Amino acid sequence: MSRYVSVLLFIVAFLIASISGSAFATTVSEATESCLDCHESVTPGIVADWKASVHAKITPAEALKKPELSRKISVQKVPDKLKDVVVGCAECHTANPEKHKDTFEHNGFQVHIVVTPGDCATCHPKETKEYGRNIMSHAYKNLTGNPVYKNLMDSVNAIQYYHGGKLSYASKVGEQTEADSCLFCHGTKVEVKGMKTRETEMGEMKFPVLSGWPNQGVGRVNPDGTEGSCTSCHTRHRFSMAMARKPYTCAECHKGPDVPAYKVYMVSKHGSIYYSQGKNWNFEATPWVPGKDFSAPTCAACHVSLLANEDGEVIAKRTHQMNDRDAWRLFGLVYAHPHPKSADTSIIRNKAGLPLPTELTGQPVQSFLIDKDEQLKRTKRMQNICLSCHSTQWVKNQFARMENTIKTTNQMTLAATKILLDAWEKGLAHKDNIFDEAIEKMWVEQWLFYANSTRFASAMAGADYGVFANGRWYMSKNLQMMKDWLDFKLAASKKK
Amino acid sequence: MSRYVSVLLFIVAFLIASISGSAFATTVSEATESCLDCHESVTPGIVADWKASVHAKITPAEALKKPELSRKISVQKVPDKLKDVVVGCAECHTANPEKHKDTFEHNGFQVHIVVTPGDCATCHPKETKEYGRNIMSHAYKNLTGNPVYKNLMDSVNAIQYYHGGKLSYASKVGEQTEADSCLFCHGTKVEVKGMKTRETEMGEMKFPVLSGWPNQGVGRVNPDGTEGSCTSCHTRHRFSMAMARKPYTCAECHKGPDVPAYKVYMVSKHGSIYYSQGKNWNFEATPWVPGKDFSAPTCAACHVSLLANEDGEVIAKRTHQMNDRDAWRLFGLVYAHPHPKSADTSIIRNKAGLPLPTELTGQPVQSFLIDKDEQLKRTKRMQNICLSCHSTQWVKNQFARMENTIKTTNQMTLAATKILLDAWEKGLAHKDNIFDEAIEKMWVEQWLFYANSTRFASAMAGADYGVFANGRWYMSKNLQMMKDWLDFKLAASKKK
Amino acid sequence: MSRYVSVLLFIVAFLIASISGSAFATTVSEATESCLDCHESVTPGIVADWKASVHAKITPAEALKKPELSRKISVQKVPDKLKDVVVGCAECHTANPEKHKDTFEHNGFQVHIVVTPGDCATCHPKETKEYGRNIMSHAYKNLTGNPVYKNLMDSVNAIQYYHGGKLSYASKVGEQTEADSCLFCHGTKVEVKGMKTRETEMGEMKFPVLSGWPNQGVGRVNPDGTEGSCTSCHTRHRFSMAMARKPYTCAECHKGPDVPAYKVYMVSKHGSIYYSQGKNWNFEATPWVPGKDFSAPTCAACHVSLLANEDGEVIAKRTHQMNDRDAWRLFGLVYAHPHPKSADTSIIRNKAGLPLPTELTGQPVQSFLIDKDEQLKRTKRMQNICLSCHSTQWVKNQFARMENTIKTTNQMTLAATKILLDAWEKGLAHKDNIFDEAIEKMWVEQWLFYANSTRFASAMAGADYGVFANGRWYMSKNLQMMKDWLDFKLAASKKK
Repeated sequence: MSRYVSVLLFIVAFLIASISGSAFATTVSEATESCLDCHESVTPGIVADWKASVHAKITPAEALKKPELSRKISVQKVPDKLKDVVVGCAECHTANPEKHKDTFEHNGFQVHIVVTPGDCATCHPKETKEYGRNIMSHAYKNLTGNPVYKNLMDSVNAIQYYHGGKLSYASKVGEQTEADSCLFCHGTKVEVKGMKTRETEMGEMKFPVLSGWPNQGVGRVNPDGTEGSCTSCHTRHRFSMAMARKPYTCAECHKGPDVPAYKVYMVSKHGSIYYSQGKNWNFEATPWVPGKDFSAPTCAACHVSLLANEDGEVIAKRTHQMNDRDAWRLFGLVYAHPHPKSADTSIIRNKAGLPLPTELTGQPVQSFLIDKDEQLKRTKRMQNICLSCHSTQWVKNQFARMENTIKTTNQMTLAATKILLDAWEKGLAHKDNIFDEAIEKMWVEQWLFYANSTRFASAMAGADYGVFANGRWYMSKNLQMMKDWLDFKLAASKKK
Repeated sequence: MSRYVSVLLFIVAFLIASISGSAFATTVSEATESCLDCHESVTPGIVADWKASVHAKITPAEALKKPELSRKISVQKVPDKLKDVVVGCAECHTANPEKHKDTFEHNGFQVHIVVTPGDCATCHPKETKEYGRNIMSHAYKNLTGNPVYKNLMDSVNAIQYYHGGKLSYASKVGEQTEADSCLFCHGTKVEVKGMKTRETEMGEMKFPVLSGWPNQGVGRVNPDGTEGSCTSCHTRHRFSMAMARKPYTCAECHKGPDVPAYKVYMVSKHGSIYYSQGKNWNFEATPWVPGKDFSAPTCAACHVSLLANEDGEVIAKRTHQMNDRDAWRLFGLVYAHPHPKSADTSIIRNKAGLPLPTELTGQPVQSFLIDKDEQLKRTKRMQNICLSCHSTQWVKNQFARMENTIKTTNQMTLAATKILLDAWEKGLAHKDNIFDEAIEKMWVEQWLFYANSTRFASAMAGADYGVFANGRWYMSKNLQMMKDWLDFKLAASKKK
Repeated sequence: MSRYVSVLLFIVAFLIASISGSAFATTVSEATESCLDCHESVTPGIVADWKASVHAKITPAEALKKPELSRKISVQKVPDKLKDVVVGCAECHTANPEKHKDTFEHNGFQVHIVVTPGDCATCHPKETKEYGRNIMSHAYKNLTGNPVYKNLMDSVNAIQYYHGGKLSYASKVGEQTEADSCLFCHGTKVEVKGMKTRETEMGEMKFPVLSGWPNQGVGRVNPDGTEGSCTSCHTRHRFSMAMARKPYTCAECHKGPDVPAYKVYMVSKHGSIYYSQGKNWNFEATPWVPGKDFSAPTCAACHVSLLANEDGEVIAKRTHQMNDRDAWRLFGLVYAHPHPKSADTSIIRNKAGLPLPTELTGQPVQSFLIDKDEQLKRTKRMQNICLSCHSTQWVKNQFARMENTIKTTNQMTLAATKILLDAWEKGLAHKDNIFDEAIEKMWVEQWLFYANSTRFASAMAGADYGVFANGRWYMSKNLQMMKDWLDFKLAASKKK
């Protein structure tokens, strides 16, 4: 009997060996071989990760032969130099050397540290272009280049001092703090600040010194002038589509009280199915077939992935413009509103001249926002996915509820805004900086935490995140607390 | 060598095919075949889900042949028409057509949209009956039919307006908001509001228009007059027992600050074991054998499942009356108290005439609550499960600690109540609505968030949820804040 | 064809049987056999768990034959009596009977209930010794033996009463409350309080009555005088190293707002990789090889485990002194500071004579803390792990950011402290107890929740936990609220 076992074990072992060993030996470029020579021992973790990646297993030429729906590269023709080697260290880290201010001489190669969407576009131009239309890709500028938002950012990050019975904010926030705070997700500005010589295992070497590094934020400004970081979601050095399809990737930035998408997903029926059964799903399949490959959507299924039915009919096209299936912008701003037309939101001006997509009292600044037709188109794209499992009435009513929630949460934000306006008018707070005082921070929480959470709960069916878990309960309580604050402040001010 | 691999792969492929393909071709009813003809392409996701379900793989007649402890249907005799076909679309969606106000003509069939506990009772009468004794099944009426609770509900959901320095609540809350808020978990009232003709892929069709739809809340009031939704936990269209045994299902409603059971479980030793090792457990086994099938309990193991030892001796009978093993009602009400006798809690009246199971100062309204004997019985049922892994002293002390926590958390709620009574007495707040003002909302958080969390942490050994994570820390701080509020309010009122 | 399937199934079944059945039948000691005779039916869950453990599968003599890097026992020579039997019930529960005050006669054996680090040291002396240098092992005394901390503890746990318009704290906190609250993680004091006779399935039996039981806190004071509990992390009765390497184990105590390490990990890139891919990692391998066995670190990988590269070169030595790779103590105290030299922190005295590692204004009490050299050594140990996957610049900048965060969060705590000092000076709060009033509790949250969370987010790259999820946003808002509280309190005090 034990002979059978041995034979079986041998077969299994061989199988595993043949899968993991694979056949890439001959298709690694000489340049990459050269990188690997040292880096297999210097940074074994990332080399191992890369070896497990699709990049290490298939050449662009082979990838191009796949049927269109299964293809993951969008370029029509791969440069000759690249087409017959797998995508290794050198293929990315030496691409477009002339564009990269972080290019440096490294063992005879012109290497750069920061691989960018510009580099990835060599094989993935369509995805790069779509991502450029994604608000995320402008996240650095949208935040730091918008005076209102920059003001909010500073009032979060600045050190405060207490002297002589008065609190004051430091006038400047350090680069390290910003990189660790808002810009961790939004992306830093990565610039070459000089060169530095360092003693390494391989002797003395020179490396560029980078500002804002490390960072993998979605709107990172790169040394080649491009914006964004594909590795925010396609984590180095596996660059796994399967991983990006799992909700943990999105959770890296979308879990806090300001944007609790992941938390809502966790308690939704969809999330519950995923956590219970997801380990048996096929996260590698392209196109991705609802019912066959997975039983409930993840973030990517609704917002990004190419979905098709078993007959190969497309249910939703792949998009890296993340709002391509979203009519409404649910979070981040004071009021929910139709999505902006341009991914660069710093260009928006409302009637008051502020760079905000609504007035302070909620009216959308329509000229900068998508119109009803475009909203309908996006809604239909999303609903087409829902209809794989849900009836028309189910889907229609689900969306109607979400639109009702947009309306009611905007009303609850308006009430908070009116209390704040009253505070300013009565001189109990000062609107020179609209984010620095207690009542202003309570106002911010009304929309940034509670209204946002309620809207996410409504959009993704996450129950308590629209009620007691930072939902309607807090919107309601916060208003009462804000009103009391006005009264207390008035009493305290008369006392002085 | 590669021939061996091929042979092995062939065997594995055949094996998978034979498992997934299964043999149900001949046992699907004609009616269900008719449904599938269209719905395999119209809603492929749910058809695929159903195909993976036990319902699609076994006929009731076959199910009845299983030994009693392994049997999942509780009916003694299945109607002839149903016994030899698998449980498909038509078997549920055309059951009891005369009772269903949502029955409509659909391609020659009398179909209804909302499958209800009344329908499931065809094969699962015992489970349905038990579930009827579960407080959850009355969750709609227990909330909306209790004036005190309806009042809380409205003060959470109503829009507030700020005009002339005053905050006011809207007098009415929209149906969509309620469905998206409290009733998401409690269940909506689903009623037929007319018929609507819609253009479909299959031509023009007529469908009933439903209020409160979609909804899968535990106390949903259905168009056939029944209460509850089996699919709250046995998610459509897999209806998986294994999934209901995993904690994610319970988390859909039991994760927020008002009822943080899942959060507590996550940090408990039981949860830690589950997350580390659960992927290797057998969630399909019936009966479920501690030690053999799983190493630490999930929610279901303690509260629902049929447990037996390896010799087939029953450790705990299956129950769908979720408090059958619980002596105390730990959450949801102002004070923890013995469980109510009746699942319909809207009938309870305390001395003050309020529909509450305790007085406002904490004394239980004993005549509506289970007595010490019944409490002991339930405790013993639960402890019998604990004893599979824990010593008598361990278990006894664990329960003693929980009872101590019930006492101390009730005391901390009493202190908060006394501050509130003082506020009312001094005219600093108004008891016409006991939930609308800031101090009242602080009082609610004392019991609904902090005392509840502390009790869950104690019951399920969840450490920090009884301390800093919404536990004793917050109970203690909240009292100090409430007291200060009184002082501030007094100062502000004298100011006016 | 089906014959092949049968053969294959048979082979697989045999394989499983031979793995799970294993060969320990002959190496279980007679004493343990005797335990199993009853306990297999009395507590089947833990027996099953033990059978699945490494303890049940290998004798110490066999374990000693493993190459040093793969060896999990650190003793040089195992006592003759133990070396050729697997580590069963009796081997632990009858060890060192004379030292154990909880030893009792049980079916002819001298058994004790509480297995302690003293017992585990029989085979694992090095780990026990290291753990003794771990602050955790002193967690009971460090908390209850430090008057400042005991004061905090009591102000969290004590019942409050409201009488005559005044709030007061109960002067004593019950043992059960403490065991369920702070001491759940810190560890209780387990003492024999007498003997009790109990009717059991096996007839009448006598057992020791234990105080503070059950408990598995990290600093538990045991009946044999030792401190700590190996089962805090190496969960009974599997004692699995693989489980301790998964983050859920650490989450049992390190997830609340006071120490949100697990939450931060969940949203970090490392956590995201773990949740997506971890199920395919090898958690059993010793030594643990980055890249080969796992692609991203868990808590244990950075803080505890023995790591080596594929050539068997050690990257980090195993340590059970958890701060062995940490230069800074990030949480638990008012200000972050260099780690204390001694694991017993109750010996520390600052200039003001308080048992705190910093002055109230932040200056470290250097004589009790490790110096810059030792900090550098520890940092280098940690960085050596980071460098398996990250470049030198990446790592250096990551640590620089963390040190910046230590500085800025300490400054934000200082501002809060100054407001508190002002409150005390103005008589608006009283410093006889520095934890019992609202403003004092707000001050505690500044460092215990918000500064801690921000530091964890910085150290482990957890984005929003340094911003809106209990991070800088709350540090900033809390200061404004504290300042307003001062003003309101002043107004209220003048009113009286």
